[in-house]
Amino acid sequence: MRILVINPNTTSEMTDAIERTARAHSSPRTELECVTPPSGPKAIETAYDVAIATYHVLELMVSRERDFDGFVIGCGANPGLDAARTITNKPVAGIGESAMMTASSVAARFSVIMPTVPGGAALGWEGVRALGLERRCASVRLTGKGVLDGFFISWDEMIEMLYRAGKLAVDEDGANALVLLCAGMTGTKEVLEDRLGIWVVDGVISALKSVEQFAAQST
Amino acid sequence: MRILVINPNTTSEMTDAIERTARAHSSPRTELECVTPPSGPKAIETAYDVAIATYHVLELMVSRERDFDGFVIGCGANPGLDAARTITNKPVAGIGESAMMTASSVAARFSVIMPTVPGGAALGWEGVRALGLERRCASVRLTGKGVLDGFFISWDEMIEMLYRAGKLAVDEDGANALVLLCAGMTGTKEVLEDRLGIWVVDGVISALKSVEQFAAQST
Amino acid sequence: MRILVINPNTTSEMTDAIERTARAHSSPRTELECVTPPSGPKAIETAYDVAIATYHVLELMVSRERDFDGFVIGCGANPGLDAARTITNKPVAGIGESAMMTASSVAARFSVIMPTVPGGAALGWEGVRALGLERRCASVRLTGKGVLDGFFISWDEMIEMLYRAGKLAVDEDGANALVLLCAGMTGTKEVLEDRLGIWVVDGVISALKSVEQFAAQST
Amino acid sequence: MRILVINPNTTSEMTDAIERTARAHSSPRTELECVTPPSGPKAIETAYDVAIATYHVLELMVSRERDFDGFVIGCGANPGLDAARTITNKPVAGIGESAMMTASSVAARFSVIMPTVPGGAALGWEGVRALGLERRCASVRLTGKGVLDGFFISWDEMIEMLYRAGKLAVDEDGANALVLLCAGMTGTKEVLEDRLGIWVVDGVISALKSVEQFAAQST
Amino acid sequence: MRILVINPNTTSEMTDAIERTARAHSSPRTELECVTPPSGPKAIETAYDVAIATYHVLELMVSRERDFDGFVIGCGANPGLDAARTITNKPVAGIGESAMMTASSVAARFSVIMPTVPGGAALGWEGVRALGLERRCASVRLTGKGVLDGFFISWDEMIEMLYRAGKLAVDEDGANALVLLCAGMTGTKEVLEDRLGIWVVDGVISALKSVEQFAAQST
Amino acid sequence: MRILVINPNTTSEMTDAIERTARAHSSPRTELECVTPPSGPKAIETAYDVAIATYHVLELMVSRERDFDGFVIGCGANPGLDAARTITNKPVAGIGESAMMTASSVAARFSVIMPTVPGGAALGWEGVRALGLERRCASVRLTGKGVLDGFFISWDEMIEMLYRAGKLAVDEDGANALVLLCAGMTGTKEVLEDRLGIWVVDGVISALKSVEQFAAQST
Repeated sequence: MRILVINPNTTSEMTDAIERTARAHSSPRTELECVTPPSGPKAIETAYDVAIATYHVLELMVSRERDFDGFVIGCGANPGLDAARTITNKPVAGIGESAMMTASSVAARFSVIMPTVPGGAALGWEGVRALGLERRCASVRLTGKGVLDGFFISWDEMIEMLYRAGKLAVDEDGANALVLLCAGMTGTKEVLEDRLGIWVVDGVISALKSVEQFAAQST
Repeated sequence: MRILVINPNTTSEMTDAIERTARAHSSPRTELECVTPPSGPKAIETAYDVAIATYHVLELMVSRERDFDGFVIGCGANPGLDAARTITNKPVAGIGESAMMTASSVAARFSVIMPTVPGGAALGWEGVRALGLERRCASVRLTGKGVLDGFFISWDEMIEMLYRAGKLAVDEDGANALVLLCAGMTGTKEVLEDRLGIWVVDGVISALKSVEQFAAQST
Repeated sequence: MRILVINPNTTSEMTDAIERTARAHSSPRTELECVTPPSGPKAIETAYDVAIATYHVLELMVSRERDFDGFVIGCGANPGLDAARTITNKPVAGIGESAMMTASSVAARFSVIMPTVPGGAALGWEGVRALGLERRCASVRLTGKGVLDGFFISWDEMIEMLYRAGKLAVDEDGANALVLLCAGMTGTKEVLEDRLGIWVVDGVISALKSVEQFAAQST
Repeated sequence: MRILVINPNTTSEMTDAIERTARAHSSPRTELECVTPPSGPKAIETAYDVAIATYHVLELMVSRERDFDGFVIGCGANPGLDAARTITNKPVAGIGESAMMTASSVAARFSVIMPTVPGGAALGWEGVRALGLERRCASVRLTGKGVLDGFFISWDEMIEMLYRAGKLAVDEDGANALVLLCAGMTGTKEVLEDRLGIWVVDGVISALKSVEQFAAQST
Repeated sequence: MRILVINPNTTSEMTDAIERTARAHSSPRTELECVTPPSGPKAIETAYDVAIATYHVLELMVSRERDFDGFVIGCGANPGLDAARTITNKPVAGIGESAMMTASSVAARFSVIMPTVPGGAALGWEGVRALGLERRCASVRLTGKGVLDGFFISWDEMIEMLYRAGKLAVDEDGANALVLLCAGMTGTKEVLEDRLGIWVVDGVISALKSVEQFAAQST
Repeated sequence: MRILVINPNTTSEMTDAIERTARAHSSPRTELECVTPPSGPKAIETAYDVAIATYHVLELMVSRERDFDGFVIGCGANPGLDAARTITNKPVAGIGESAMMTASSVAARFSVIMPTVPGGAALGWEGVRALGLERRCASVRLTGKGVLDGFFISWDEMIEMLYRAGKLAVDEDGANALVLLCAGMTGTKEVLEDRLGIWVVDGVISALKSVEQFAAQST
């Protein structure tokens, strides 16, 4: 089966990170392509960014829909997800939605870890509520850095940044699982699980696994 | 990794069906054991059945917890799921919860297909609402048969029964995916997807895939 | 004060209709400009249409923001409304949101009259719920025609179409006011009020009046 | 068109303030009458005050209904609003309801500024929730003074009192607009907008503008 | 302990009926007084009636508060209940609120039986929702007669009227208990329980029993 | 009438305390039996405890159902309540549910006083929300001691512990009534009411009074 993974922002280094995670966790029968849209925001932090990114995600969906069996939208804000589902009958997963649904499938309560964006934690809670999962969400914790500031740092700094936010979620909010809401945080699941002792959901993996359950049939 | 799949009712033929699906879809690295509790209800249709089955699920959890890396509770009513999560830090998925969360990860709106039980579709809606997914649920459709009456029939009769309910969900309710809420319906996903043209979620598969994303780390 | 009225679809005849209503009801101190975006959907009926129209609305907002004191987005689906509010501090009203808020300001319960679109009345209810007004909404009634089919008809046919839907809302649903959700229905308020005996909210008027209350200060 | 503006409390100085605002903002075609009920509470701060004021508002409504084309109830608690709408088909607006609906028509999120009453901010939130607008309300901020204590002060003191509460709403709660919930705060909109840089909703104006959109037709 | 039972309407025959029930079920230590207000609506069917009755209930509360240890407001719409609780620290129960709370204390789901009023069953549902009990309410069933038309009939006719509505609630809605929402239905509990085989809640009894649990202490 | 009172934990001293309260407040016509299940948790503090206790409560219900006219489940977590209602048509009350419903029948807002359990006040709020009473609950206050630690202390220590929690509820949360959520707190109602000056709901009394209203008819 062929799955198209769309990074809705135009930071190609983030597309590379998403691709590394996806290739490491895809089924042997899955054929992957990871794409960066030709234009749009470098990072998605506001309702305006989401609207612009949505447009470019949908352009990609329209032009490539016939060539794939399933789709992953690689941004925690799920830009274009609802609209994409109206232009294809194939499975489409967003990493934000999928990560929260998967966390809710294995743990009593999850905390969301997200970049510090204008609007703050309220934006994260809005996303949680839009999915109806507010009773499952222990807290929304910000990393203290924006999307790109938290991505273009060393591995050790990133782990430290996520560990600090996750530790507060565990110790003060009683979280049983963490949702990494930003694609820029991908690849850190195992290390964080080791250090924090709770389950960490990487939306790239969970979205891919969800799509594979259904795209598999269309080959 | 070792995963324990618990069939909360005492109908061993249903445990066998669950096991066939689980073995067909588990990762090569997964070691499975499927168990039937020594006593309890033959089928789980009422709040009373759920309460009794919960007790036996928890007995199994307590006695076998150390031997496994993750757990699947193989009943759409998820008996004992909340309590099980308080006695282990390992991932525990219920097939009812997991199926609805997975359907919500790939499709705009799902319909629930469930046996005809006392209390009717209202019970199914209660389960949907408990997860916060009422805005994602297009309808709850009953099969016209109870849990055991709908299980101990021929393959053709079962497919016909599920097809009829699913067809109504597609044609009249606008469902984009079907959730098979009863473990007795397992194994029919591919045939129903072919005949109905929409995605069908088999909770045994989705629960297993969710647990595998996390249990994998604990080996 | 200068107000920019944006018709989010590319049907310029609809922009003309919106402009006629806006000019007839604007304050003497208001200077209006009504624009049609250079590209985008001819009519906005699906989540996909909304996403594409949003992009073009935001392009217009970005390029013209400095020249105006307030903005009206002339589509019942309010495309780009949330994002527009993040890129300007000036008042921005969507005719769908504004019409429902205004109906709720003068009447106990309103009914929504909207074109027949894919997804049907469920889409209208989604809009109502997104604003938190479900307890104020008596019903959502469809006209039986799509956006353009219901716009490119004679005056008499349009009045008859809206009267029929409105009459059901009054007689069967107990509505105290009607919300005309589509910009293509603008200009019919007075005739419908005379025939139906209840208040009719034309979002073009209500959005303009709301913006005028605030844009007035920025001159 | 003739509009009756009812001040539900018996403080005639407040009726005068309401009348000044209403006259300054009414349409040239509007004929206004502002009335103080013969008896009732001097200020409306508790559920008991609301109940008593409701009675006197309804007496006025019953005796004057035939003489007017629309009605404004000039108190943020909207006493008698629901009942008034059952005894007339003409538009009836309450300044509390109308101010929140209008704020929601032009801004992403509003804060409520209200007098310090027994029960505190919880009362304000109750009003917000009754309208379904809790997702649009950034905060409820108290002035530190009761209804009459905050009214019978100098202009400078009143502006300072409202500015302080509004500043906290802007700086700490992220409000995009302010709702002045008490009729005793009327007339301060322009000054506060200048000092705070965000939109301020004076319910007397917004209620009048809403009623004018509909009462206009009945002449 | 002394308990004041207020019939909020001015139909003294209904006060008599309320008094008969109250005397038959009060504790030996309870001293009862049942009063009819000097003026107000003959029956309470609309929001306007509620507002007027509220005023007269509060007048009675204010003038008699010192003489009693607890209060019962004998109308299913609970007029003045919230305001009454702000002017006394003694227990105040409304028969509508109390009946639904008591039904929820002993049965899974109740149906409301109420007179046919303008606005219909929607009014009953509003009352249920205001208490947060919508998940416990199986249905709202109308008797087909208004408050007075259903009161001034023979005993046999009243029983037949209530039996018919209750039978539908049992057979079609799955109710486990009935709430008689109107004080005019008092005195029929035992006969209806015998004929219908489910529990019937007479708000006069349940309100009295609730108040007795607390008023007892103040003697 | 015969009423069975079940203490769902196996601490017989708590059964004795429940029995003392029940005997002191039951009607002369009531015949009581209070039972301790043969096995199960000594105290009920977690979801796991609830699940195990539920099993034993249902065993008792099944074996004794024929001998009684009504049932009280003497634990604030109401273990087995929903299931019990599916195996009998007789009234079944849980002291947690009943206490909150009764508090809501006489007071504007109540606070819950509960032992300090794993999960903290969030567990109490979950119980409040499950009943739909969140708008009536002023706060959940913990005693600082677990179920047994707060039971096996001297009378003076228990009163002091409950008084401290209740005082905070009155002074800081504005509670009008207290709900004692744990059966181990029974018997303190009068003393606490005297010291705190607000109503205190002892679920053993309120559940008994609710059941007596209906069980009375079945003799």
